[in-house]
Amino acid sequence: MQCFFDPHSVAIIGASRDPSRGGHRILKNVKAGFRGAIYPVNPQCAEIDGLQCYASVRDIPEHVDLAIVYVPGRLVPAVVRECAERGVGGVIIESAGFAETGTEGKARQEELKRIATGTGIRLWGPNCMGLVDAHKRHVFSFVMETIWEDGLLAGDVSLVVQSGFLAAGFVIDLMSHGGVGIAKACSIGNKVDVNECDVLEWLLDDPQTKTIGLYLESISDGRRFMELCRRTRKPIVVLKGGKSARGAEAAMSHTASLAGHGGVLAGALAQVGVVEAHDFYQMMDLCRTLARYPQPPRSGRRRVAIVTGSGGAGIASADFADELGLELAELSADTRAALSRLYPPWMPVANPVDLFPAMDANGPDVYRKAFEIVCAAPEVDAVLYHFFGLREQSDWFAAMGDTIRSTGKVVIGWLIGRREILEGVRKRALEEGIPVFRELYRATECMAAVLEQRHVGDPRDLNEPLEQDVSAKLQSLLSPGVLDEHRSKAILAAAQIPVVQERIAASADEAAAVATEFGFPVVMKGLVPGTVHKTEHGLVRLGIGSAAEAARQFQSLSEAMSGAGSVLVQRQLKAELELIVGLIRDPQFGPSVMLGLGGVMAEVFHDSVFAVAPLSHAEALRMIARLGAQQLLDGFRGAPAVDRDALAQILVHIGNLGCACPSLREIDINPLLVSSGAPTAVDATVIVD
Amino acid sequence: MQCFFDPHSVAIIGASRDPSRGGHRILKNVKAGFRGAIYPVNPQCAEIDGLQCYASVRDIPEHVDLAIVYVPGRLVPAVVRECAERGVGGVIIESAGFAETGTEGKARQEELKRIATGTGIRLWGPNCMGLVDAHKRHVFSFVMETIWEDGLLAGDVSLVVQSGFLAAGFVIDLMSHGGVGIAKACSIGNKVDVNECDVLEWLLDDPQTKTIGLYLESISDGRRFMELCRRTRKPIVVLKGGKSARGAEAAMSHTASLAGHGGVLAGALAQVGVVEAHDFYQMMDLCRTLARYPQPPRSGRRRVAIVTGSGGAGIASADFADELGLELAELSADTRAALSRLYPPWMPVANPVDLFPAMDANGPDVYRKAFEIVCAAPEVDAVLYHFFGLREQSDWFAAMGDTIRSTGKVVIGWLIGRREILEGVRKRALEEGIPVFRELYRATECMAAVLEQRHVGDPRDLNEPLEQDVSAKLQSLLSPGVLDEHRSKAILAAAQIPVVQERIAASADEAAAVATEFGFPVVMKGLVPGTVHKTEHGLVRLGIGSAAEAARQFQSLSEAMSGAGSVLVQRQLKAELELIVGLIRDPQFGPSVMLGLGGVMAEVFHDSVFAVAPLSHAEALRMIARLGAQQLLDGFRGAPAVDRDALAQILVHIGNLGCACPSLREIDINPLLVSSGAPTAVDATVIVD
Repeated sequence: MQCFFDPHSVAIIGASRDPSRGGHRILKNVKAGFRGAIYPVNPQCAEIDGLQCYASVRDIPEHVDLAIVYVPGRLVPAVVRECAERGVGGVIIESAGFAETGTEGKARQEELKRIATGTGIRLWGPNCMGLVDAHKRHVFSFVMETIWEDGLLAGDVSLVVQSGFLAAGFVIDLMSHGGVGIAKACSIGNKVDVNECDVLEWLLDDPQTKTIGLYLESISDGRRFMELCRRTRKPIVVLKGGKSARGAEAAMSHTASLAGHGGVLAGALAQVGVVEAHDFYQMMDLCRTLARYPQPPRSGRRRVAIVTGSGGAGIASADFADELGLELAELSADTRAALSRLYPPWMPVANPVDLFPAMDANGPDVYRKAFEIVCAAPEVDAVLYHFFGLREQSDWFAAMGDTIRSTGKVVIGWLIGRREILEGVRKRALEEGIPVFRELYRATECMAAVLEQRHVGDPRDLNEPLEQDVSAKLQSLLSPGVLDEHRSKAILAAAQIPVVQERIAASADEAAAVATEFGFPVVMKGLVPGTVHKTEHGLVRLGIGSAAEAARQFQSLSEAMSGAGSVLVQRQLKAELELIVGLIRDPQFGPSVMLGLGGVMAEVFHDSVFAVAPLSHAEALRMIARLGAQQLLDGFRGAPAVDRDALAQILVHIGNLGCACPSLREIDINPLLVSSGAPTAVDATVIVD
Repeated sequence: MQCFFDPHSVAIIGASRDPSRGGHRILKNVKAGFRGAIYPVNPQCAEIDGLQCYASVRDIPEHVDLAIVYVPGRLVPAVVRECAERGVGGVIIESAGFAETGTEGKARQEELKRIATGTGIRLWGPNCMGLVDAHKRHVFSFVMETIWEDGLLAGDVSLVVQSGFLAAGFVIDLMSHGGVGIAKACSIGNKVDVNECDVLEWLLDDPQTKTIGLYLESISDGRRFMELCRRTRKPIVVLKGGKSARGAEAAMSHTASLAGHGGVLAGALAQVGVVEAHDFYQMMDLCRTLARYPQPPRSGRRRVAIVTGSGGAGIASADFADELGLELAELSADTRAALSRLYPPWMPVANPVDLFPAMDANGPDVYRKAFEIVCAAPEVDAVLYHFFGLREQSDWFAAMGDTIRSTGKVVIGWLIGRREILEGVRKRALEEGIPVFRELYRATECMAAVLEQRHVGDPRDLNEPLEQDVSAKLQSLLSPGVLDEHRSKAILAAAQIPVVQERIAASADEAAAVATEFGFPVVMKGLVPGTVHKTEHGLVRLGIGSAAEAARQFQSLSEAMSGAGSVLVQRQLKAELELIVGLIRDPQFGPSVMLGLGGVMAEVFHDSVFAVAPLSHAEALRMIARLGAQQLLDGFRGAPAVDRDALAQILVHIGNLGCACPSLREIDINPLLVSSGAPTAVDATVIVD
């Protein structure tokens, strides 16, 4: 990737004299900042803009590290082939006319792929805006030459954007709107060869890059992406386009249907500590905040103090903090005493620290003093500071900056007030490295992203691979198709997952005997090959209370199945909670484990979480903690709490199963009943390819 | 209120020569725009700024409509008393130092209240920034004289803000940041006399005001507020500060605990078609959008077309639209045919209408043409239009404005692109009345607010008052205290609410007989006066299957109660769904009806809705439709659908009960079981004052 990020020589194929052409702008942009050799290529010119121009890349006498191509799409494959022959390290193809434009374009893109695979040349794009390095002032892009005057600032946020022309333009243009300093902006277009992982890997080692924001419409290699995220402590923010597009497919199992709508992606990102953004500017706001505060406080807590000049704004902040899972700091006696010296005597000190009456009584300087006090307080991890456009505030910045640096507190500002004053405040705040926002919710949301403990760089202790003999046993059970409940649970049992006690009965007498052995009540089920929804087919009989009844139900089920299936007798569990656990193969992430609420709640409240297998025990515990309905797990209404370790172990085993058996397409344990805290698989369907 | 909004003469009490004083700015501001007589009042000056100055309001020779007071708080009561004596119509008290500043201030504010009540003089404030009328150019406020140069524009959004100095300053300053034209901005401070309802009432009849935004920390008279909202078709947006403050109180019943966190307010606002905002700028964005599109489309539908130049941005828009309950328009064959003429042949027409390949093939003008086509399409109610900062877009505005006006479609723009181009686009968009936003989510959210059918101005058919004899019967049942289940249900039954069949049994024999009469299984409960949580006390026995068992349980319950209570025998219902219905008295809105999910789901998912009583049948149906878990009501998993009319009738009756019986403090029907679609009260607690 060095040829893209640190080339010594650049050829511009399609360089043009016509200022309205992209090929002209690329040359201008490269010339303006790049310090190495520049070779324009255009068979119709001998010279452009004072540089010798070549008819073909083959004619360039020196070695070319990087070629930037901006010729019509149909000419691109030939040009790229020449580059490969000439030994060019990498090519940024900014031309459009590939997979985004129908059959012909798709074929052309396939051709590029073959060239890359065959020759080893690295291809970036096509259909992209290339690469901007704001520190080196490399603009390997056809963007307007005015981006610097427009406001592009060198900074510590790097951006990676998939998608074509306009979507990439967003981010270039976001940069021009101010406030966010950019390290590198990489528009990777159709990703014929270089993908987000290649670029991300480079950026992780880039000293100028403190935070990486990615806008992606697809992830080329989910597992490599996760591994990269896992091994860095740099904050990564992802805005994923096209989430709703995947939910449409018909899904056979709950697990598969819950996996739509970006569930696996969200789970994978959470698993490796990536922040998920949901809108364009919001992504930029998260990036610039996390560049300033790349690590959550050491305390591991989220105790926020709110410093405000308005009771109402303080309450609104407290509401948002609560909504976003932040904690209002409980101010210590010392802190209260210090603050109370600023307050009028009648007013009790509280958090939000409302300073209006104090300023009214003792002048605006109390606002500065209160900030110092809460920053110094050990019980405060972060300060949400309301800038009200007080004229005096502009003079306090140097001291504020010092306080933030010396106390290590996370300080984020909300900016509201007269335009004329605010512009100055905003500028000074940025100089002092205090992220400020115009919307209160956004300020609080960015603070929440900083305070969130992102579990990155975890040592992975995936030390429970399936043992050899278990694997052998499994192979004998894995015949292609939709396996029936009993067979499915045999697989689960072989993988050390607790399953309910059950046995196939061959006759009414045997059913009665088994039921008596298990103890009443029992459940009896008719298993017909290929029938997933037994309940809908009337093949489930609950609460069978006697041996005679068991015998009767055997006859009844046999008749209902017309002799085609078998009858299963099962111990009936008394359960305090119903869960679903499953495994799917995600096209981007591979085997992924699902955990959700069961029963009616599964379908109505969609409370489910995903994680990509294999899982460590600790990861599985964190996955459980991501479920919304934590109350239900913690011994709700006097029920026993769920044994989280046992549940985590089931998730680990399910993930291991998925990794060990590639033919295992899907597992759906529904329900996983929790009885006296212990989770047990009661019904299950395994689908084998 | 006319003395405030349309005075002929204004006295400024506390007018000052010192330019650093608020009293100086008020005089300057009034002089700059007000065309009537102006009387500065200050005992230390004979003349200020060319105007004769008076020692006291008593010395002013002419009638004074309005006095603006800006003297130290302790002097205010005397000054106001003089105004009342002098026959001044109204006083705007901008001084601070009242209820917001402790005991002494509170007493002072009480004194003001007594003066207002005693003399009939109207008092606005104290602790406020007064009133700005941007059309008349009345600035009855101590704000900086530069607000016009800062960017205050006359427009059609009026604002009402409670709270003091700084919070009111927000909104004045929001105005100076551009884009939102203001009709009137009213800072009403501590609301000692004039409250949001008084101001709202005036604004509803104000021809310059098309939309009203209110930032409120409390609502003085919830019912009057609702009546005002009900009788207008002007959109009203409320941002309520201090939502989280109310949830803390310990609550005896589910209903009361669910009422915290702004539930009743949210219900009341939804009931009368008010839009609830959640952040400051967002409120302004909602206001300016609703001022442009005050009514939802006649179709009553929310079918949105998305016009974009980026596939990715189109998908992101579709995601947001889906999240916000909008529908993607299904384009008709005609519309598709017209659009396909703009598209390259390989590309199918879809919604989002992605024009990038079309522009690539046929030039930027296709973007304009596509807009015309989707606007004209009868299957499209609204168009979310992405402005990408194409240079050509600026030339299309006049035609776009015409199209919007002639087709009556709701058009909202998302603005992204190079700063230099965007500023021009934004300006032209505002001139043509197209609301544009920088954040895609905000644009979609504002569109959703426009397309939401707001049920305002409904003819109210509250035609089921409790009959006279029922009221009499009720009175005999309403003894103060926490009534037991049986007594509580007797009250419900008298109010025509279906209750489960039940009877008190005086002996084991009677229990057996009653149970036999009802049919097995039955439930038996021990009722002890004052015990609300029977289950926790072991006083509920479910599934009693025989007369002998009923007799045994009678003995067991009697022993458990040590003879202190009575034993209730109850038919046991088979229910497919558990709900909770209740009544509370909200301090701001009075008797309010609650409907929520029952059982475990009630506590874990907090799916509950409120409405203020009395309710019409139609309102009750809309209240049911606001519940999140609609799937559960619609015959989930083959269960019968809930009889919505029967459920609505219960809500109507509960509301009527609350209105008819002021001593009825609280009703909690928990559960209201739905059995074969029919809702029946199974357990209930009534609390009487």
